[in-house]
Amino acid sequence: MTIPEVKFKPPTTKGHTSVARVADDWYIVCRSQALNSGPRGVMLFGTPLAVFRNVNGDIGALLDRCPHRNAPLSLGNVKGELLQCNYHGWEFDVRGACRLVPGLVGDQKPKGCNVQSFPVREQDGFVWVYATANSEPVREPFRFPFIREKGYTTVCQELEVEASVHATAENALDVPHTAYLHRGYFRLSTRTRHEIKVAVRRMHGRVEAEYIGEPRPSGFAGMVFAPAGGTVTHIDRFILPSIAQVEYQLGNRTHLCVTSALTPVHDFRTKLFAVVSLRLPIPGWMVTQFLKPLVMKIFRQDANMLQHQSDTILRFGGEQFVSTEIDVLGSHILRLLKQAELGEREFPEKDLVSEVRMII
Amino acid sequence: MTIPEVKFKPPTTKGHTSVARVADDWYIVCRSQALNSGPRGVMLFGTPLAVFRNVNGDIGALLDRCPHRNAPLSLGNVKGELLQCNYHGWEFDVRGACRLVPGLVGDQKPKGCNVQSFPVREQDGFVWVYATANSEPVREPFRFPFIREKGYTTVCQELEVEASVHATAENALDVPHTAYLHRGYFRLSTRTRHEIKVAVRRMHGRVEAEYIGEPRPSGFAGMVFAPAGGTVTHIDRFILPSIAQVEYQLGNRTHLCVTSALTPVHDFRTKLFAVVSLRLPIPGWMVTQFLKPLVMKIFRQDANMLQHQSDTILRFGGEQFVSTEIDVLGSHILRLLKQAELGEREFPEKDLVSEVRMII
Amino acid sequence: MTIPEVKFKPPTTKGHTSVARVADDWYIVCRSQALNSGPRGVMLFGTPLAVFRNVNGDIGALLDRCPHRNAPLSLGNVKGELLQCNYHGWEFDVRGACRLVPGLVGDQKPKGCNVQSFPVREQDGFVWVYATANSEPVREPFRFPFIREKGYTTVCQELEVEASVHATAENALDVPHTAYLHRGYFRLSTRTRHEIKVAVRRMHGRVEAEYIGEPRPSGFAGMVFAPAGGTVTHIDRFILPSIAQVEYQLGNRTHLCVTSALTPVHDFRTKLFAVVSLRLPIPGWMVTQFLKPLVMKIFRQDANMLQHQSDTILRFGGEQFVSTEIDVLGSHILRLLKQAELGEREFPEKDLVSEVRMII
Repeated sequence: MTIPEVKFKPPTTKGHTSVARVADDWYIVCRSQALNSGPRGVMLFGTPLAVFRNVNGDIGALLDRCPHRNAPLSLGNVKGELLQCNYHGWEFDVRGACRLVPGLVGDQKPKGCNVQSFPVREQDGFVWVYATANSEPVREPFRFPFIREKGYTTVCQELEVEASVHATAENALDVPHTAYLHRGYFRLSTRTRHEIKVAVRRMHGRVEAEYIGEPRPSGFAGMVFAPAGGTVTHIDRFILPSIAQVEYQLGNRTHLCVTSALTPVHDFRTKLFAVVSLRLPIPGWMVTQFLKPLVMKIFRQDANMLQHQSDTILRFGGEQFVSTEIDVLGSHILRLLKQAELGEREFPEKDLVSEVRMII
Repeated sequence: MTIPEVKFKPPTTKGHTSVARVADDWYIVCRSQALNSGPRGVMLFGTPLAVFRNVNGDIGALLDRCPHRNAPLSLGNVKGELLQCNYHGWEFDVRGACRLVPGLVGDQKPKGCNVQSFPVREQDGFVWVYATANSEPVREPFRFPFIREKGYTTVCQELEVEASVHATAENALDVPHTAYLHRGYFRLSTRTRHEIKVAVRRMHGRVEAEYIGEPRPSGFAGMVFAPAGGTVTHIDRFILPSIAQVEYQLGNRTHLCVTSALTPVHDFRTKLFAVVSLRLPIPGWMVTQFLKPLVMKIFRQDANMLQHQSDTILRFGGEQFVSTEIDVLGSHILRLLKQAELGEREFPEKDLVSEVRMII
Repeated sequence: MTIPEVKFKPPTTKGHTSVARVADDWYIVCRSQALNSGPRGVMLFGTPLAVFRNVNGDIGALLDRCPHRNAPLSLGNVKGELLQCNYHGWEFDVRGACRLVPGLVGDQKPKGCNVQSFPVREQDGFVWVYATANSEPVREPFRFPFIREKGYTTVCQELEVEASVHATAENALDVPHTAYLHRGYFRLSTRTRHEIKVAVRRMHGRVEAEYIGEPRPSGFAGMVFAPAGGTVTHIDRFILPSIAQVEYQLGNRTHLCVTSALTPVHDFRTKLFAVVSLRLPIPGWMVTQFLKPLVMKIFRQDANMLQHQSDTILRFGGEQFVSTEIDVLGSHILRLLKQAELGEREFPEKDLVSEVRMII
């Protein structure tokens, strides 16, 4: 097929924003089980897609617009191997090829009757879509670590925020805001504060910050994860195109890894598919049950602030950020995203490491 | 009066759409009885109009903006022959001439105090407005057939869809979609299918498709209209600027004519004034009572799909349609509309007839 | 600080509107008591401000956007002398200077960490903000007359309308509309009408109209304010940037002064802080209790009409007004506003007086 690629719409503000559209990479559009009951309309970079699983178990991700009269294909029905439009009954396969135009005598299907399709992978219980239509992927989707390792409990949660991928990732990986926005849950702003070191490492397609000398978390979260204290290893990572990962190790027995795959619905709306893997001295399910309301409360504080941030940026027609050295990951993430949007990913000969001091 | 004509607003998308604005023709803005209780605000091509009937029974259709301080005149009151603005009491006649400025000493009415008015006809129980202000109509409104003929029962229904006139007319006159969108009501997609001929005739200001060899409608509708079977004559017509007509004849005794006059409220919102005229072997009222819920159900399926179509078109910033030969009327309707928008209506020396085959 | 001034956003229509943005003057953003319970987000000319009172009683009006990550500062907390952002805990004083970046080692605060601040005055129980950031005011706020004079009763009311400052001021000071929009409350349109004279006086930064020979108000309002009749002195005034004042004197004993300070929230949304001062033969509270529902009813009629006027203007993409000589103040107010927007205020050597006749 020689159909031109979908062109994403221009950003919705005129001023500078931290919006980037990395089109040659993979994003989760839904969980596998979401396709059990027929086609589903999703949005990626503002482009509507119709995702469906056919009778063979193959998944198609088609532009959600019937070439005939522009009805949304996601309103249609799966018929065997094909997706049938609900307006005039045209049928398409998982590659977007039109296979039936009901009513036509003979088989003179017209030019342009195929619909653009996006590469799909089903992996780790999620449906991943490659954001360039009718193309050959140049890489494979991210693999969630630990989810099948022995001793780990894994839970998933689907969330949505009114913010860009960049703002959402920076928020998810930012330490200083926890003492303020999540006052009392993580760290305490007014009590004992510690000066620690942060090693920032830039690698191919990713950046990470390791917090060295961090005391065990205080507040409520501390009591849960490190009742016995111990040395803390804490690394926050951003991996292209949109993985935000927080990893905590407390001594030998406690290991927590929260990996959020971020999907750009619109420029200022992001879906989070959060995968939490836990290894604990006690059975994981005891903690996960108990933890969920707490985590959701913290998430809502973040989502609420991110929405206010987006509203402010859109109201002013663009953003104007000032950073300090303790904003350890934000500007690295932005550079990675903006370069990748242009198709460039740097291969440093060796990892670039810098170190900053921070009071937490 | 030398007030320049109202210029309609530009279309609301940048890409191609099937929107056309035929300004030198007539549209229904409301039923006659809707003016019994004072002035009424309506919208034609996105332009607000204040329509009122004065004490003499004359109807005025004025731009819905008082020239003084731009209050909507449709909020005003009819006073004798005049429409009084409810803000400062200015009064206008049915031609838009300002006849009173309360408070002014003497009669020094200022320049520009008249309001643009649109030609009006009251006909067949409807109020028709000519879409060019302060002009002399070059033609007269469409006349509904059969409504006063003996043996016919006529019912009217006012409806509204979020779609262009073109999309609404094509939908109303399209046969292939009925087997899918209205599955079970009209035709059956999977059972016995017939190959028929369709004669498409282009005439002055109109286009029609005659279905030759069509079996009596199956499904529920068939049982109602043709209990005894018989030869079917079925013609679908589009008549400029916006009449969509479906005519069925079953034998000698059953005749159904559904004429929808479409009014462009906005580019993507259309009012339908549907007039259904029926001649049946049994008293018409027995059928109309019974038919209404069915017809409304079918209409809601169409309205719902048309809204999804419009949403998709607007989301993509324009439409991209692919047609086949069994889309027998859509492209003819579009050509008629786009030509008429430029003031051109073709006068073919004789009717142009083509024939296509279709499986229904 | 050398931060550039906030530039207001362009008007929201392309056609002509009576919107003007007088930036070198004062507007009420809230009542003093509104700051008792923490910071407050307000809007001035479409620009969001965070207004707060610190522990010393000083008031700050800061651009409502943290320089760090553009969170709204109005969501923050007052901490002693400072306003603390609720996202990362940055703290600002009432002048907008950043005084703390939590987590930073040492005090290397970055460039651009201060936030723009607007001059503030607290006066007559209101918080006034000067509409140019980081500037030295060239004048002081308006002072409400009579509010502390013996024998006067004063009540305040905060209101909001969907209209420009110009439309709101013209409406508040317009006499002819009262007989129509407020039919039965003020004057009677159809009964006895009087020809009176109106002296229009243009002075420095203001314009006023004195109604000479006006009979005592008829209708309901008349019964309340002038039960015994007597000579009426009636002056309507507009004072830059946005004060609309109506003053009535009936004989020696009754004096009514309604002063509305108008605050441009957006181009087409205006807050009114109305201060009503009354001196009456009977105790003021007897009347104010009784009057409030009446005044609110009249206000709602005006607010409703102004909203319809704005809707019409925006729907047509601009306004098109025709005026007569009995629109005595509207065009003067517009000229004052448009000149002042350019920084010009005329100083006529002597007051310019003109006289028109009007039937009321």
